[in-house]
Amino acid sequence: MKFLGKKYLITNDAGCVIYKAIKDLPIIDPHNHADVKEIAENNNYSNVWQLFAATDHYVWEVLRKRGVPEEYLTGDREPKEKWLKLASVFPELVGNPVYEWVHLDLRRYLGIETLIGPDTGVEIWKNANKVLSKKEKRPQQLLREIGVETMCSTDDPVDLLKEHDCANEAFGRKMIRPTWRPDKAMKIANSGWREYMDEVSRRFNMKLDSIHELVAALKLSHDYFAEHGCVASDHGVEMPLRGTEDPGDADVIFCKAMDRKSLSDEEVEIFMSYIFGQAAEMNAEKDWVFQIHMGAVRDVRDYLSEKLGPDTGGDVCNHFQDHFGPLKDFLNRFDDRLKVILYNLDPSHQAMLATMSRAFGYKVRLGSAWWLLDNPIGMRRQLEYIGSVDVLASFAGMVSDSRKLLSYGSRFEMFRRVLADVLGEMAERGQAPLELLIELASKMSYSGPKEFFNL
Amino acid sequence: MKFLGKKYLITNDAGCVIYKAIKDLPIIDPHNHADVKEIAENNNYSNVWQLFAATDHYVWEVLRKRGVPEEYLTGDREPKEKWLKLASVFPELVGNPVYEWVHLDLRRYLGIETLIGPDTGVEIWKNANKVLSKKEKRPQQLLREIGVETMCSTDDPVDLLKEHDCANEAFGRKMIRPTWRPDKAMKIANSGWREYMDEVSRRFNMKLDSIHELVAALKLSHDYFAEHGCVASDHGVEMPLRGTEDPGDADVIFCKAMDRKSLSDEEVEIFMSYIFGQAAEMNAEKDWVFQIHMGAVRDVRDYLSEKLGPDTGGDVCNHFQDHFGPLKDFLNRFDDRLKVILYNLDPSHQAMLATMSRAFGYKVRLGSAWWLLDNPIGMRRQLEYIGSVDVLASFAGMVSDSRKLLSYGSRFEMFRRVLADVLGEMAERGQAPLELLIELASKMSYSGPKEFFNL
Amino acid sequence: MKFLGKKYLITNDAGCVIYKAIKDLPIIDPHNHADVKEIAENNNYSNVWQLFAATDHYVWEVLRKRGVPEEYLTGDREPKEKWLKLASVFPELVGNPVYEWVHLDLRRYLGIETLIGPDTGVEIWKNANKVLSKKEKRPQQLLREIGVETMCSTDDPVDLLKEHDCANEAFGRKMIRPTWRPDKAMKIANSGWREYMDEVSRRFNMKLDSIHELVAALKLSHDYFAEHGCVASDHGVEMPLRGTEDPGDADVIFCKAMDRKSLSDEEVEIFMSYIFGQAAEMNAEKDWVFQIHMGAVRDVRDYLSEKLGPDTGGDVCNHFQDHFGPLKDFLNRFDDRLKVILYNLDPSHQAMLATMSRAFGYKVRLGSAWWLLDNPIGMRRQLEYIGSVDVLASFAGMVSDSRKLLSYGSRFEMFRRVLADVLGEMAERGQAPLELLIELASKMSYSGPKEFFNL
Repeated sequence: MKFLGKKYLITNDAGCVIYKAIKDLPIIDPHNHADVKEIAENNNYSNVWQLFAATDHYVWEVLRKRGVPEEYLTGDREPKEKWLKLASVFPELVGNPVYEWVHLDLRRYLGIETLIGPDTGVEIWKNANKVLSKKEKRPQQLLREIGVETMCSTDDPVDLLKEHDCANEAFGRKMIRPTWRPDKAMKIANSGWREYMDEVSRRFNMKLDSIHELVAALKLSHDYFAEHGCVASDHGVEMPLRGTEDPGDADVIFCKAMDRKSLSDEEVEIFMSYIFGQAAEMNAEKDWVFQIHMGAVRDVRDYLSEKLGPDTGGDVCNHFQDHFGPLKDFLNRFDDRLKVILYNLDPSHQAMLATMSRAFGYKVRLGSAWWLLDNPIGMRRQLEYIGSVDVLASFAGMVSDSRKLLSYGSRFEMFRRVLADVLGEMAERGQAPLELLIELASKMSYSGPKEFFNL
Repeated sequence: MKFLGKKYLITNDAGCVIYKAIKDLPIIDPHNHADVKEIAENNNYSNVWQLFAATDHYVWEVLRKRGVPEEYLTGDREPKEKWLKLASVFPELVGNPVYEWVHLDLRRYLGIETLIGPDTGVEIWKNANKVLSKKEKRPQQLLREIGVETMCSTDDPVDLLKEHDCANEAFGRKMIRPTWRPDKAMKIANSGWREYMDEVSRRFNMKLDSIHELVAALKLSHDYFAEHGCVASDHGVEMPLRGTEDPGDADVIFCKAMDRKSLSDEEVEIFMSYIFGQAAEMNAEKDWVFQIHMGAVRDVRDYLSEKLGPDTGGDVCNHFQDHFGPLKDFLNRFDDRLKVILYNLDPSHQAMLATMSRAFGYKVRLGSAWWLLDNPIGMRRQLEYIGSVDVLASFAGMVSDSRKLLSYGSRFEMFRRVLADVLGEMAERGQAPLELLIELASKMSYSGPKEFFNL
Repeated sequence: MKFLGKKYLITNDAGCVIYKAIKDLPIIDPHNHADVKEIAENNNYSNVWQLFAATDHYVWEVLRKRGVPEEYLTGDREPKEKWLKLASVFPELVGNPVYEWVHLDLRRYLGIETLIGPDTGVEIWKNANKVLSKKEKRPQQLLREIGVETMCSTDDPVDLLKEHDCANEAFGRKMIRPTWRPDKAMKIANSGWREYMDEVSRRFNMKLDSIHELVAALKLSHDYFAEHGCVASDHGVEMPLRGTEDPGDADVIFCKAMDRKSLSDEEVEIFMSYIFGQAAEMNAEKDWVFQIHMGAVRDVRDYLSEKLGPDTGGDVCNHFQDHFGPLKDFLNRFDDRLKVILYNLDPSHQAMLATMSRAFGYKVRLGSAWWLLDNPIGMRRQLEYIGSVDVLASFAGMVSDSRKLLSYGSRFEMFRRVLADVLGEMAERGQAPLELLIELASKMSYSGPKEFFNL
């Protein structure tokens, strides 16, 4: 029962055997929010706050929960002050995965075994920063140390992907692949959409007089991303869209929005649904994976969203959402010709999504437990249920979904340990032969996603 | 940790003691989709594909999920080719209960311990078929070997039940009982409904000029089933119906449909709700059990339903369904005078249904975890929650719900082992004396359902 | 594996260590339905039925479920007959927490180790009643024996709280605090509302000619409760209300209802929402805790509610409820200036509520698993999920929510054991250092709620 010790998260002997077989497999992380510029520039991290907390709203949220004022999180305080404030309440976070992740990062990659707390904050600040100043702890070196084989960042269609080229040149291979995420083009009701259209127009040197030209511009972007090694798109929508083939009034709606006229909810949905379907069509042609992140309700806390903007916290899930109808139409339209991953957030939606994945055969897969489920209990419950109704061998694989470089290590370690524990229990209960479970664990951790994403 | 060994699914000592006490109890399976003709004719199975997979869409779905083409499932390929294809991907199914069920069947009833896989497909085909050609492996002999005391098939009201008579004569007792399932009469919006009315008319030699004559014909059928040993009805409805007593416009709606006029959704519901209530009234009079299968959304994958028809896969559950209101009205109408079993599919509905069962007293009971929950995790979660809010002694009992004869063995073994494990844990945690848990296990496995179904 | 033995509910060594550290901490029970008059009068209990079952609809519901007729529960039978009937079916209740609670009460506070059953009913009746006739088993003495430091009853705004004063005088300190529950004032559509307004009017000697006077009267009550040691309000609403600041037509609606005119659903909601918000405003000013009990659907079984009235059973939860929207508006209005506890009932709502609690920072907390979740499985699942997304150190603490005095002991023992087991597992899995988990357990069991409620 050593904290983060050899048997961390593994409670049975078969699980230990399985974990041994998968722990050193290379990491494929098909979805994250990597700061590719940071990796391309490859400067040393300025301090441990920068590395562990400065870009991670998971950390901010749990610190807020223990009463840490905003100035110490996203505000003007010096990094050292912020770090010491974090340290002062850190022991109160036990039980939350943030407590485990940050200590894993500290141990596995900085070699520091000290527990973070009010008495150790200063010492860790000093020692960690010293380690971080070493050449071998720069971003590119850390990614090699973590064992990342491929990672896919999340990028906007207008992005030129120069930093990807630059980083990959340093690695000597296509290690960081872009992911095509056209949310800004699709979200016609968002305040910045009209200006974003101008960006698209400039980027592809096209006049956007009709929705067909917008689709054509997106297609140019899609091709451009393909040339830069992209193998997947990603879509964050609160509700899945039908992806209707028939444009209906989509062009009229587009032109209204270009003229800065306001749209009804129904018009917004018609437009979004059509673009969603067009994006899926492009993916189907190129055999890309279409990733759908379902169920996040973002920015519900007005105080945060008004003061700090998006991706700063205040996001929740909601059981009371009708995902089924739109998803059914979408999956039927693209049946057997589009690779789809469904990422689930609310545990009460899990059965519906797993049965949908089961029903639609080989090309539709469940992604890893996401965000508020990305923890030992959430992963375990998801794996248990997937195994029960769907087929574990068709699991789409772990993703870090992180904005923090070290997460590519700690989150995959957590996942692989939970996976080993769950499969180990199956062996212990006599539900499957251990040899097959070892093979399955390896497929789920590495070869399965590699094949599905064409890597 | 031997695969399917003595301690399969049982993780504690008390569980072993409990399982020993219930494992050989006779099997009562109050709901399945038995092919009674097959049992009555009692021919040897032609081969192992026929026995294990030819009628089981659970198997088809997981094979599709691993990319097996339709021709090897429901298509024209020879049974041997289909079997070998199954064997070639079977190791990839570990974790799914199909992997356990098929191996259980192979071991427990054909005596073959070999693991199914690409290298063993031919050998198992040969050996299993040899066993299947023996006299003692014909359907009636297998049912005796499995230990089935009573099983209830699912039958249409126009059925003459001749095959039931014939099979029971061979058994020398009322072993296979019919279950009255009037779904086809109730589903007025289905394409074949009008033709089905002609069948009903012919069967009971009645003109169906009003809904009252339809109800009268159904009553004749209900009586006929009672004479043939029926003790329960079964109802598969996506949404439970209120079972309204007042017919309202039900007769007008019936006449419109008989004239092949189209109906509004509201009209469909009025008709169905009325027939549902009439069926319940008939059950109440005869003290039959009224079984409601709730929450399946069927045939969502157009490709399958258009090409292969119903019951071929493509069925899911959906969290976003309002079961509560209609069920409340229904249970209040028949409070304390109708025996009802609620079968739940989506885990997110489980609490609502368990609390409804608790609220409505002795005659309302929760049925076993169904379909996509009919696996070790689904059963365990259901038993844990039922025990927590309802009373386990009032559990309605395990049913196989299967179209495959051997399931009457393997699914009951799985259930009894999970039950023993869950109750064993209660003993180990000091929540109840072991002796009482042994009694409870026995009641839940055998005497409880026997008494509730009047068997 | 001794029934209710030393290791009851604790399955790991770390859990034993943790439990030892918290088992004797004083009890703070911030929400229950104590019969304060009973405590103030401090008479001996007349018999064991009176103590264990006469006021507890949890017991009635599970006895009904096993077929016990109403006359033996709420009817005219003698207490002894009722007790013997209970004893005759009690062994059938194993698995349900009622089986554990009642035996815990019997063992821990009456010193009787006999299992309740048909053969022991008479003996226990005799022995238990003998113990109950002792001076040291009167209500006040029992509360001291249980170790209650503070308990908060649930009271109506018109209550004079004389019995609180009287009981506290006997204890020599503010042990029993009132909780302000204005449900009757808010539920304008209830049959007794108009008469209740007359009560309010008399109590505060005010004419209620407008909603402003009602709010003023409630404010007088709120102040009065504060003077009597109240630190929290409690609100039982099927759906959370927005707590809208703008009264809109609330006054017109109030006046209509005062004139006994009927209201539309929309009008009811406007009124309730406004009063809800006003109550929250009063709490914010005094730094009281605002407790919301969410999701109970009450009195669904007409037979019970018509014959016996409310709080007699027939209550359920329903997954299909839209809590999210109203709660979001409410929490935003009072962001960071109102202490809120969210009590959840339906497990499928748990993720939404836990993420809302996480999102809204320090002052919003999740309360303990409630009613149909107040059992070992429900508590465990809740603690696991809270730990995963929210912060356990911010847990609002256990409450008994009981109408039965001994529950202040047995329910807290069950909770503390489950908590120790869950945290112990974290230690065993290497997820946190044991010392920190011991501190956390102590905070969650005692010092956390004490601080949050200003006790």
